[in-house]
Amino acid sequence: MNSGLALDAVKFDMEKKTRAAQARERIRSGAWAGHTSGLADEHVQGNVVILPKAWAEDFQLYCERNPRPCPLLAVSKPGEAFLPKLGTDIDIRTDVPKYRVWRDGAMVAEPTDLSDLWSDDLVTFIIGCSFSFEQALLSAGLPLRHVEQGRNVAMYRTNVPTVSAGPFSGPMVVSMRPMRAADAIQAIQVTARFPAVHGAPVHIGDPKLIGISELGQPDYGDAVDIMPDELPLFWACGVTPQAALQQARPPLCITHAPGAMLITDLLNHQLAIS
Amino acid sequence: MNSGLALDAVKFDMEKKTRAAQARERIRSGAWAGHTSGLADEHVQGNVVILPKAWAEDFQLYCERNPRPCPLLAVSKPGEAFLPKLGTDIDIRTDVPKYRVWRDGAMVAEPTDLSDLWSDDLVTFIIGCSFSFEQALLSAGLPLRHVEQGRNVAMYRTNVPTVSAGPFSGPMVVSMRPMRAADAIQAIQVTARFPAVHGAPVHIGDPKLIGISELGQPDYGDAVDIMPDELPLFWACGVTPQAALQQARPPLCITHAPGAMLITDLLNHQLAIS
Repeated sequence: MNSGLALDAVKFDMEKKTRAAQARERIRSGAWAGHTSGLADEHVQGNVVILPKAWAEDFQLYCERNPRPCPLLAVSKPGEAFLPKLGTDIDIRTDVPKYRVWRDGAMVAEPTDLSDLWSDDLVTFIIGCSFSFEQALLSAGLPLRHVEQGRNVAMYRTNVPTVSAGPFSGPMVVSMRPMRAADAIQAIQVTARFPAVHGAPVHIGDPKLIGISELGQPDYGDAVDIMPDELPLFWACGVTPQAALQQARPPLCITHAPGAMLITDLLNHQLAIS
Repeated sequence: MNSGLALDAVKFDMEKKTRAAQARERIRSGAWAGHTSGLADEHVQGNVVILPKAWAEDFQLYCERNPRPCPLLAVSKPGEAFLPKLGTDIDIRTDVPKYRVWRDGAMVAEPTDLSDLWSDDLVTFIIGCSFSFEQALLSAGLPLRHVEQGRNVAMYRTNVPTVSAGPFSGPMVVSMRPMRAADAIQAIQVTARFPAVHGAPVHIGDPKLIGISELGQPDYGDAVDIMPDELPLFWACGVTPQAALQQARPPLCITHAPGAMLITDLLNHQLAIS
């Protein structure tokens, strides 16, 4: 027998599920081909990398050896388009708003559907993204400058090498968020609880110590203002594996288009460790 | 029936207990009147403040309003010399190596025993000390410069006010430990688990932002070297309540002499939150 309270809880859970599933339905139908920022934002979103089986083993090893920039949320079997660990109805061929198709390291197409390209040889990797920990930072009352300024987060190539695996190597890419010292100390504690989405920062303070010469000129994203009483905080960034892929030049690689991620059924807070 | 394993565990526990109790026995007998740094160092040590009952209520409120610099581990009833929460046989009149007796804010004596001074009017406060979190930092492989250099930690008066209570007020005093950025990020996570002994740092980076003009000239303790690739980390410090006491000038106040703390039966790791 369900009590009224239990029924309410079930309804609430269904509604949450529905928000992620509804967003995917809109995307699958072709009604939405844009950014996923702000869509079902209590749900975990993931970076997408799809590779031929011959390249997948090394790429998986590369992610496992570099868990801060490349936190693996799920890996499919070859040819398997479904990701039951991340959502009951996810079909990776249709559920990302926009894809990028790369051949030998060069982008050749930006389709919104992979059905024609799909083959039994393809392996899908879903990598955690900083949207999840940004929700936790905002929930803790910590301001995010790039959100306030309506910009993309600033990202930089560093002189910190990743651990290579087969053809995959390259520098760690970091995202930067400026904060006052007390907020920075709290932000370190908050994000340390989310190792599945990059975890605690990898650096704080002087950018030159990790090979960044000019904060005003990010390699990806937009520059943001830094106040005199603020410190820059640097987190390992999901662009790192994309840079490694561009360098490795596999014959075929499919990724999400920037900002157009896979929306999963996982809730952000489920990624927190105690 | 005890198994061999269970007996071993009991022996181990007795041995641990014995190390703190043995240190207190040596102190109680008068055989040791020096620093407690390094004595039974797996055990929690505490700052000691003893006040007449008329001043105790405001001082307790002051500690409760400023838990970062004044984390209360125990408060006695008036006249009660025992602290069963911190150890089965602790007698605060004899178990601290050296005391300081203050009258109207001026130090008048440094006895090694309080038996003659004791009265039913006195209330004892034991306040957490950074020895406990320093053990956790060292266990995590994080270097401490003042330990490496055989100096006392550097402490500074800040321009950050504490929350006053009755006659007790004044600036927060902080201790400073320099670290490289990656170590600093880890140190924040490690010490955040120890709110009973000051917790996470209150500041990181530019000392001028908290009113410290010259790191080379600490207000208490010794200056330590800071390398070009290091950031100063500032923790709330147990000298804060001592400064508030000196300013309030109670007719009688008894504290531990610097570095000569109360050794309790608590183990440092027992203070960690999950």
